[in-house]
Amino acid sequence: MTETEGDILDRPVADEVQADIYDDEGYIRHDFLTMVGAAIADRDVLFLRQHVSKLHESELGDLIEAIQPDQRLAMIRLLGDDFDMTALTEVDEAIRMQIVDQMPNEQIAAAIGDLDSDDAVYILEDLDDEDREEILAQLPFTERVRLRRALDYPESSAGRRMQTEFVAVPPFWTVGQTIDYMRDEEDLPESFTQIFVIDPTFKLLGAVKLDAILRTKRQVKIESIMHETNHPIPAEMDQEEAAQVFEQYDLLSAAVVDENERLVGVLTIDDVVDVIQEEAEEDLLRLGGVGDEELSDSVFAISRSRVPWLAINLVTAFMAASVISLFEATIEQIVALAILMPIVAGMGGNAGSQTMTVTVRALATRDLDIHNAFRVVRREAGVGLINGILFGCTVGLVAGLWFQDVSIGGLITTAMLINMFAAAMAGITIPMILSRAGADPAVSSAVFVTAITDTTGFFSFLGLATWWFM
Amino acid sequence: MTETEGDILDRPVADEVQADIYDDEGYIRHDFLTMVGAAIADRDVLFLRQHVSKLHESELGDLIEAIQPDQRLAMIRLLGDDFDMTALTEVDEAIRMQIVDQMPNEQIAAAIGDLDSDDAVYILEDLDDEDREEILAQLPFTERVRLRRALDYPESSAGRRMQTEFVAVPPFWTVGQTIDYMRDEEDLPESFTQIFVIDPTFKLLGAVKLDAILRTKRQVKIESIMHETNHPIPAEMDQEEAAQVFEQYDLLSAAVVDENERLVGVLTIDDVVDVIQEEAEEDLLRLGGVGDEELSDSVFAISRSRVPWLAINLVTAFMAASVISLFEATIEQIVALAILMPIVAGMGGNAGSQTMTVTVRALATRDLDIHNAFRVVRREAGVGLINGILFGCTVGLVAGLWFQDVSIGGLITTAMLINMFAAAMAGITIPMILSRAGADPAVSSAVFVTAITDTTGFFSFLGLATWWFM
Repeated sequence: MTETEGDILDRPVADEVQADIYDDEGYIRHDFLTMVGAAIADRDVLFLRQHVSKLHESELGDLIEAIQPDQRLAMIRLLGDDFDMTALTEVDEAIRMQIVDQMPNEQIAAAIGDLDSDDAVYILEDLDDEDREEILAQLPFTERVRLRRALDYPESSAGRRMQTEFVAVPPFWTVGQTIDYMRDEEDLPESFTQIFVIDPTFKLLGAVKLDAILRTKRQVKIESIMHETNHPIPAEMDQEEAAQVFEQYDLLSAAVVDENERLVGVLTIDDVVDVIQEEAEEDLLRLGGVGDEELSDSVFAISRSRVPWLAINLVTAFMAASVISLFEATIEQIVALAILMPIVAGMGGNAGSQTMTVTVRALATRDLDIHNAFRVVRREAGVGLINGILFGCTVGLVAGLWFQDVSIGGLITTAMLINMFAAAMAGITIPMILSRAGADPAVSSAVFVTAITDTTGFFSFLGLATWWFM
Repeated sequence: MTETEGDILDRPVADEVQADIYDDEGYIRHDFLTMVGAAIADRDVLFLRQHVSKLHESELGDLIEAIQPDQRLAMIRLLGDDFDMTALTEVDEAIRMQIVDQMPNEQIAAAIGDLDSDDAVYILEDLDDEDREEILAQLPFTERVRLRRALDYPESSAGRRMQTEFVAVPPFWTVGQTIDYMRDEEDLPESFTQIFVIDPTFKLLGAVKLDAILRTKRQVKIESIMHETNHPIPAEMDQEEAAQVFEQYDLLSAAVVDENERLVGVLTIDDVVDVIQEEAEEDLLRLGGVGDEELSDSVFAISRSRVPWLAINLVTAFMAASVISLFEATIEQIVALAILMPIVAGMGGNAGSQTMTVTVRALATRDLDIHNAFRVVRREAGVGLINGILFGCTVGLVAGLWFQDVSIGGLITTAMLINMFAAAMAGITIPMILSRAGADPAVSSAVFVTAITDTTGFFSFLGLATWWFM
């Protein structure tokens, strides 16, 4: 201890620090952040050990994200062996890479040895090949082989997310033997909800949930209480698909098998929940025209990632402008048209994006398919007509009164009706066509829908006006 | 059996029906739907029992959604006692209500007796008070009390989603006693991953995971292996908040306690996964300007639910139009302005919705808070400027060449730069202000952001042009 007593007394002692590090809104409490910041600045290892190292991994992850970037590595260094590497699986990718890049490989290797294999893979997969090999080389043989096997599976596959630690027994063991084995064996996974039944070649025969073992008398054979694992997950399967299997069958964990149906690992619901969250987030960001950016990315990285969508939209914006330019002469005569035309296009865009959002969602959850497509298209057509009439008449009335011109009112009503119907049709058919063609409707639908509602809106309104007035 | 042999032979026998009812894209196979449809039409109970009643509840739910509305009740009637009511928890609310409304209360009561309490509550909560009371009256006393207690908790609370069946033991029991109890007791929950430790008044003392029981010798006391349940869920807690606790601490199940900290039920991860899905879906739909509509709602219900958002947008569209009308005289002179102005407004709208989407998401996941707000605002300002310069110059160049006019190119470049910067600022600050004010930023941000990008776009472009040319 190199600090003076006064320094330590300035900060509250253990009991005075509240147990809950979050405020009412779910953010980390400001006074806790201040205390941690001061402790890092003062190199107060005692405080950090007492209040930071006892945090749950996800709390520690939130803390790492909340403190200043330059404090992060300092805190990890001060914590030393007391730092729980699992916390790094809970932070933004950009922050994780910053930290891991700056940590010495020896320290990463030492820390990774203590992690579950899925968490270890999560950290290793972001590293460049050289660093990864150096770290792997420092691990014990079995550990290294296991991790390398998981890393060999494609990115975002079940094999990458699985845990290679599991409990497996032969079918002829009794419940009693199994319980005794678990009581004696030291090297069990940290936590598990079922055990697997395998043959001598590791071929998966079935599984037994722990509650089934606990309900059954000691002399009963495992094979008589095991159930077939109807949904073993191939290691190559995409994690999103694996998540759907979990959701569909309410699984807590599932066996992961290789191409020979040999058990290689277990996928657990907590990883799957993360996948579900990520996928939902991806859909939302894609619909908003944003890629895989994270809050911690740099200004230039973000600017660049948003350019493609803006660029495509620019092309459609010029398309819409060229539609308007067809009617230059008409607008020159009646400027009211220029004032009103954004209303027709804009309302169509809004109606189209409503339908599109519902369609993209229904496709993602597989509620929309070829069998009910016709019914849903018909329904959206009805919605488009009803709201087209409603808003067409409202706009027509207001526009007619504004410009004291019945023709303008009538024209805009008709154009609105046409465009809101077109919006409904575009909103439902474009995502369906894109999905059929194998494209992700969340990424590309919005551009096409806006292109259609803009051009239809301008063309119908200005076209009708030209036909009527000219 | 009232059918002729020929009828039965027309349809494939058990072995010929594929085990997997889904096609490669995850939709129910068309030939399976045809077979089920034919079986319903022919009242072929044998086929339905063989191929439909053995389906997993979620598969049966998908099937119910996929068949024609008039076939649904017919199939359920034909299946009789073989129909698994749990499947109704897996279908759209509108479809569930249609089916339950038409089923006789006696049949519902009989079926509900077999369900886990959380599934029973899920079905009962949609019924009107009269039907619900009639069904509850037909249930055994304990069952009725339990369900009524769960139904007394507020809608969308943890108490509504919890299962009232759980295993609880006193702390002084040994592991051996606990295992023996589970072996002998008939009335255990269908599946469980931890047991709870309670005092005689049902006050929650702790919990033990099943793997801990299996690792421990028979004579060890439960109290010495139990862990404190750090995160008991108050029954009144909102399900969304409960889901966040699950996510944060990677829980598989959690104790639900009443206001006196007495154990009243258990919340399990499968229900929580549903909540997470629903919440993500809600955010996505709200950003797209859609409320809680479902694919099975009627045309009128949907039209009506989409009106409010369109109506608010209409007001902002007229605001934008009135901005344009300020510059009527300028447009009359230079029609090119009318042609180009939607580009300025539209690109601003796109940039604004990108920033807004990221902000809404970051607020929902609590990645954005008061501590990093300033940093994020500064970053978005940078992104707005960079992309404003990039796209401003592009548009300026194209517009200048198109209309052979350097001034127009310069004006639109400046207007784009102003509007894309305004879009970035609106996209980040509006959701944050709404969230601070206690409003859901997903619902209301888009309207405000569009209002700002439209008016700023038209005003800056037309205003600059008026100042320059007039």
